[in-house]
Amino acid sequence: MLLHTIYLIAICAEAISGALMGIRKDMDIFGICLIGTVAALGGGTVRDILIGHYPLGWVAHPEYLGFTICAAIVAAVAARALHHFKSAFLVVDALGLVAFTIIGCDIARSFDNFHPAIVVMLGMVTGVFGGLLRDVLCNEIPLVLRREIYASVSLLTGSLYVLILHWQIDGRIATLSSLLLGFSVRLLAIRFHWELPRMDKERVRGFD
Amino acid sequence: MLLHTIYLIAICAEAISGALMGIRKDMDIFGICLIGTVAALGGGTVRDILIGHYPLGWVAHPEYLGFTICAAIVAAVAARALHHFKSAFLVVDALGLVAFTIIGCDIARSFDNFHPAIVVMLGMVTGVFGGLLRDVLCNEIPLVLRREIYASVSLLTGSLYVLILHWQIDGRIATLSSLLLGFSVRLLAIRFHWELPRMDKERVRGFD
Amino acid sequence: MLLHTIYLIAICAEAISGALMGIRKDMDIFGICLIGTVAALGGGTVRDILIGHYPLGWVAHPEYLGFTICAAIVAAVAARALHHFKSAFLVVDALGLVAFTIIGCDIARSFDNFHPAIVVMLGMVTGVFGGLLRDVLCNEIPLVLRREIYASVSLLTGSLYVLILHWQIDGRIATLSSLLLGFSVRLLAIRFHWELPRMDKERVRGFD
Repeated sequence: MLLHTIYLIAICAEAISGALMGIRKDMDIFGICLIGTVAALGGGTVRDILIGHYPLGWVAHPEYLGFTICAAIVAAVAARALHHFKSAFLVVDALGLVAFTIIGCDIARSFDNFHPAIVVMLGMVTGVFGGLLRDVLCNEIPLVLRREIYASVSLLTGSLYVLILHWQIDGRIATLSSLLLGFSVRLLAIRFHWELPRMDKERVRGFD
Repeated sequence: MLLHTIYLIAICAEAISGALMGIRKDMDIFGICLIGTVAALGGGTVRDILIGHYPLGWVAHPEYLGFTICAAIVAAVAARALHHFKSAFLVVDALGLVAFTIIGCDIARSFDNFHPAIVVMLGMVTGVFGGLLRDVLCNEIPLVLRREIYASVSLLTGSLYVLILHWQIDGRIATLSSLLLGFSVRLLAIRFHWELPRMDKERVRGFD
Repeated sequence: MLLHTIYLIAICAEAISGALMGIRKDMDIFGICLIGTVAALGGGTVRDILIGHYPLGWVAHPEYLGFTICAAIVAAVAARALHHFKSAFLVVDALGLVAFTIIGCDIARSFDNFHPAIVVMLGMVTGVFGGLLRDVLCNEIPLVLRREIYASVSLLTGSLYVLILHWQIDGRIATLSSLLLGFSVRLLAIRFHWELPRMDKERVRGFD
């Protein structure tokens, strides 16, 4: 229940983030809605295609498409005003990343024979690939591959969730504690600009 | 029958458009053929993957690959001459967009439980995603997200088609009337440079 | 057996090539591992999705993910030293291209009703699409569409393999001879800079 509510809020937030990127790339209103929808629902879509889990979420629940399209249109109309809610977006995006991850792990776990590492991996795909597809369509190197820790939060959340469930502890406790951990770490990462190590580009000179 | 003939002509036209783009990007003949094939068959492929509809069209009918590869090679050889047929291409492309959409809706309708909005959406994916994948492979922001109304024509065509069928009217009437409407609107859009509204990029400043 | 050993070595080599590209694009260690994994396992993943062949290889064998991630991390740490092994990489990459192709043909052949042309095509997808996805994620026009003959080697290898099997000749002979032919042609192509024909860009002027 809680997770589902967070999910619906999060797809709207992701749709808005996608829409803003579409505006910045000078797209028309169709493009803005499409980028918003891809940003919001792309992660779950990629996950379901990777495991052959049909029908896709938004095919079974067309209202999800309605939500993301409405959110994208609102973003396009109210873009200037949204500026004031910038930090609210970061918070909702963090919540969404963690909720997407847990939902992704749950769906992967419904396939009996998946290794725990694959479950965590598919949770990460759910959390991260929407933004990745958004950036590919906007002709950018995906931010998630370069940004302060983001995908790592997803991996951490998924690992904790799978671990707690492995100990046969109640599902609600697993959900709440991994939600809380992931969310806190992500907010701290934003606040203190935590980044994963990067390599010196000079070191690969001569490989072109 | 009519639809199938239009389909075969349209995949050749799309393959030629893809091939010309490949030439412009300095690709070799393999790249030119691949981009042409993706432009022609990519939309249907994405649709089938999204709904788990196997085997894919070109897997069941390898001759489609033959057509698109031949069309791409012809385009590569006769590129300079094709210049004179520029407006013919726009007409065939418009026909193709509309035919792809109707075919996509038909395949989606063969899944009993799909909501009409999903059927229209999958028709649009069929019509539009070939060009979108072509542009992603050529490292461009997809034209379809920024161009004079194109995807919207697809949505309009699909909606009319689904609506007429919903009224239990004969399938041929549904096909012909939505084909005609979509085709006319697309040609008018090209002629008069109809565009969807776009947002002022200044309004999203500060979101980077 | 031989093929499987080559496969494991090849996915590590591809993961390293992906990782080096990630470093060059200033990605963090997560991005480096993801690009490496996509480069190594992306081709087989695309093939399996195109034919609905589940579970995917790395879902059934999570250890493949372990190999590619380790290889990517090693590449990130030892990037400067890898420089000295540049030509070794080209050799392993050539072996990988050919091995991927044959494995891809084998899996496609397990679907009884596939046309030989589709089998060869799916072998090529297995060999080539990992590098293609890597380049799309790194915001480059895929090298494979422009480079000295690479995909063509894959098509040649697959065609020979399918042809020999069609003649009812022993599978091991088919594997070995197509492996050898493809590998030699690829090395010769690198050595003598063989390229497929390219078209003069001037010829498509006026099509923009």
